[in-house]
Order: sequence, then C-alpha cells, then structure tokens
Amino acid sequence: MIGRLNHVAIAVPDLEAATIIYRETLGAKVSPPQDEPENGVTVVFVELDNTKIELLHPLGENSPIEGFLKKNASGGIHHVCYEVEDIIAARDRLKSKGARILGDGEPKIGAHKKPVLFLHPKDFSGTLVELEQV
Amino acid sequence: MIGRLNHVAIAVPDLEAATIIYRETLGAKVSPPQDEPENGVTVVFVELDNTKIELLHPLGENSPIEGFLKKNASGGIHHVCYEVEDIIAARDRLKSKGARILGDGEPKIGAHKKPVLFLHPKDFSGTLVELEQV
Repeated sequence: MIGRLNHVAIAVPDLEAATIIYRETLGAKVSPPQDEPENGVTVVFVELDNTKIELLHPLGENSPIEGFLKKNASGGIHHVCYEVEDIIAARDRLKSKGARILGDGEPKIGAHKKPVLFLHPKDFSGTLVELEQV
Repeated sequence: MIGRLNHVAIAVPDLEAATIIYRETLGAKVSPPQDEPENGVTVVFVELDNTKIELLHPLGENSPIEGFLKKNASGGIHHVCYEVEDIIAARDRLKSKGARILGDGEPKIGAHKKPVLFLHPKDFSGTLVELEQV
C-alpha cells in the first residue's frame, strides 16, 4: 500500500540555525522558509536526491509542534510521511486493521496541497506517520 | 555533500509486532529479521520505492538502542542516514564546520558493510545523523 517516503519532518527550535546546518555543514540544497499558517508551521525544504527533509518551526499560536519542542528542546525527528495512491482506500484499510486515525478521520489538505492523514503513534511503534495522496 | 537518504531507522520494542504493522497494516515489503551482533541490533528492512526504513531491536548486552528504548518505551524514530561519496572528506568538512563526530572519529563498518560515521545530535537540531559512504 505505502509507496515512496515523501519526507522526513524534523522539528527545530531555530529555523535559521537549522538551515545553515543543512546548507553549509551538510552541503544540501535548501529552500527559503515558507509560512504555512493553516498548518501552524514555517517550513524549510531540504532537497535530497531521492526524497526530502522538512525542517518545521512553530508559526502562530497552538502550533501542532509546540508540545514536541517543549519535550525536545534541541529539536528532533517529528514524523515520516508515506505516499499512497488513494487516501480513502488507505484509511479504510488501516481502520479495518485496527489502526487509529488522528483528528476526525477525514483527510485534510496538507503542506503540499494534497490530502493527508496522520496515524496514531501508539499503533506504529511510537512513530507519528503521515499519509499523503499523490 | 549529502546525497540520497539511505534509510530512516526506527527503534522498536517488539520486532515481530512492528513487522506485522509494516507488512499487514501498511502493506509494505518487509525482510526477514537479520541479526547484526557487531552492531548490537536485529534489523528488519522495509523496502519503499525510493529508500528504506530499518526497524531496529536490541541484540545482546549494551545494545546502542537500549537507552533510547528505555526513554521511548513504545519505540520511535532513532536516526536518519545520508549517503556521501567520500566519508573521510565528509568527516573533515564537518569537523572544519565545528560539528562533532561520535566515537573516536574514525569510520566503522556499518550494517551494509560500508564505512559509516555518526554525528552528534546536538549539532544537528536534536537529530542523530549517520553518514554512509556508498
């Protein structure tokens, strides 16, 4: 069912410092920061040859990564995102296997303007999993 | 400098349960477990279209992921691994930028029989980074 790894999201307390680390220290191609008010984050995209890293920083109040950064002050890997062809079929398969979908169970439009769902970390070995329809 | 994302490593408390989640629930192609006594882990490889997930479980005493699983009892994302062409050149560049290499600073032979280094999470926004020469 899952296809490509779309991205790995890393929550960072200092987006400028993280950008410099990825661009200067690791020598990767890094985008300018992009505000996503509807998702409560500012994102910097690190483009790798086969996938991307998304550096996330809280934007506005009640950002979904605020709590994570309180627990992980230096930052850390926040979630992985797998691509699926049909997000409704994927959701129904997951539910039939007993996995819990976060929120109201309906896909939202994510950072790439495509339908996404988040799955409960407790059902996936402690890992927050995002599914994105491509 | 960094090329492909070679893998994302996820430490799991129950390797069989995690295997079932990835094979049955997420519908991915999953390898049999492979013991790596020299690295203190048993690994299950989840093959995605563009990269792989490595499910890690402690093997033997003093496994390097034992402490992580004590802090994260349900499991969690442990590290990301980026490919480099020349690990010595990569190491020297990183050191010149002030980044710390874990251990004695010399590459070890990793799980894929290739030279690897681990970088200090505090220098990479709280993320444990592995570099592998390919």
